[in-house]
Amino acid sequence: MTILDGLATSKQIKNEIAVEVSQLVAAGKKRPHLAAVLIGDDGASLTYVGSKVKSCEEVGFKSTLIHKGSETTEAEILAIVDQLNNDDDIDGYILQLPFPKHIDEHKVLMAVDPDKDVDGFHPENIGKMALSLPCFLPATPAGIIELLARYKVPTEGKHCVVIGRSHIVGLPVAILLQRNTYPGNCTVTIAHSRTKDLKALCATADIIIAALGKPEFVTADMVKEGAVVVDVGITRVADASKKSGFKILGDVKYDEVAPKTSYITPVPGGVGPMTIVSLMRNTLLAMKNRG
Amino acid sequence: MTILDGLATSKQIKNEIAVEVSQLVAAGKKRPHLAAVLIGDDGASLTYVGSKVKSCEEVGFKSTLIHKGSETTEAEILAIVDQLNNDDDIDGYILQLPFPKHIDEHKVLMAVDPDKDVDGFHPENIGKMALSLPCFLPATPAGIIELLARYKVPTEGKHCVVIGRSHIVGLPVAILLQRNTYPGNCTVTIAHSRTKDLKALCATADIIIAALGKPEFVTADMVKEGAVVVDVGITRVADASKKSGFKILGDVKYDEVAPKTSYITPVPGGVGPMTIVSLMRNTLLAMKNRG
Repeated sequence: MTILDGLATSKQIKNEIAVEVSQLVAAGKKRPHLAAVLIGDDGASLTYVGSKVKSCEEVGFKSTLIHKGSETTEAEILAIVDQLNNDDDIDGYILQLPFPKHIDEHKVLMAVDPDKDVDGFHPENIGKMALSLPCFLPATPAGIIELLARYKVPTEGKHCVVIGRSHIVGLPVAILLQRNTYPGNCTVTIAHSRTKDLKALCATADIIIAALGKPEFVTADMVKEGAVVVDVGITRVADASKKSGFKILGDVKYDEVAPKTSYITPVPGGVGPMTIVSLMRNTLLAMKNRG
Repeated sequence: MTILDGLATSKQIKNEIAVEVSQLVAAGKKRPHLAAVLIGDDGASLTYVGSKVKSCEEVGFKSTLIHKGSETTEAEILAIVDQLNNDDDIDGYILQLPFPKHIDEHKVLMAVDPDKDVDGFHPENIGKMALSLPCFLPATPAGIIELLARYKVPTEGKHCVVIGRSHIVGLPVAILLQRNTYPGNCTVTIAHSRTKDLKALCATADIIIAALGKPEFVTADMVKEGAVVVDVGITRVADASKKSGFKILGDVKYDEVAPKTSYITPVPGGVGPMTIVSLMRNTLLAMKNRG
């Protein structure tokens, strides 16, 4: 059993990016600049944005955090988006979701310039991904793909079961893994809440991508001996023994599943850090695309 | 066993569209106008475009066929696309593919205004489809979905195996059938040339969508008793006994498979006519969207 160490891999990739940024800046190019828009004070969102800003520093990017109160109107957010679209120094930016309930997230997303959409959430980028065209891949699926690639995990002809059909993880990772490339060429099954006999289906899988957001859902009896298991779940569960008051659980019951697998991602330290690194890679790409 | 009669269903839908067009025109609205761009003299392409023009007449649309020789340059085609984008009377248009080899199809496609892309091939429309947003659905997948809906074929929780991952049929129909709606909510498996043991996989399927383009590939031993079989194949095979010199074969060995199924599409007269009807529906939608 090999642990797919997302933390170590993400550090390595950050080093690679930092070296490239130094070289670009030394050659007179501009420093990549990522902006993040955060509305309100959701604890998890604050943590995520904080990690992204810190990662920008580590790789030598400029970063700008635009943090507004939860009473911010949709019109005000659209004005921020318009300003970011037109700011020549900003190479890419992200909208930290969820927004407060009175904001139409879709309307705001559609206002994002696809060329600055480093989250890869705009329909034009999703469509290009499906058509195997150059684009910004959504960060979590791209992080999973990169992790499989770095560990040279075989994928061709493998049966991959993706549990969960969300627009930001399940569906795009399914699309990526069926593509005619490496990592890819999997026979992909998309499973979800309406799937019948999910246990039996998972037990046939060579690769399981668990992205349903239910802590410790995938148990040992659902996993074939030698399978590859990628755990996308990150659920906060109250834990009085922790200083933070909570612990992070994945979608996989790690202790009993891990011994059966050929490769498995831990939580934390698996897919999470790879997601942030994908965002850094997209930002660097955006800067290069803009010449 | 019920035959999913695409020909009869397409006639019914055409009647519905014709009635709506009459009402719209009577209310002072413009008549929907579809244009088609055909480059060269490929026999199959001529036939397809001819059917589309004929369908426009049947439903009361205006149609314009722009037919140029195979020596037409990419710049000339891009100029045609630009003109169609800016022609206020044109509600939607299609590029009849394949183009001659010296043309970069992707470059031309990217120049199409997504709001006039009634083939639903532009990345923005593909992405919106994946995100379940209003869009022009690609014609063949939309036709399949509509046929299943008209016959009230149960799909929720069914295991659907899509054979083929093409950008215009296999992948989009897989995306549509996994969505949280009806028809949809299938557990979808995307199979392709790298899939191992496709026969065994198909034999577990409640619904098979055969879209690989290999005549009579799906045989009775690959089909579960009571399965739904949708045949997207249309391959021309030489047949001296026919006036045309060829016959049309589907991807399914119909005679031996049909008796095992609960529903099946014939070839011809199944998915084919539904595809053209989807194009008519998209054109009507384009006209309405443009107000």
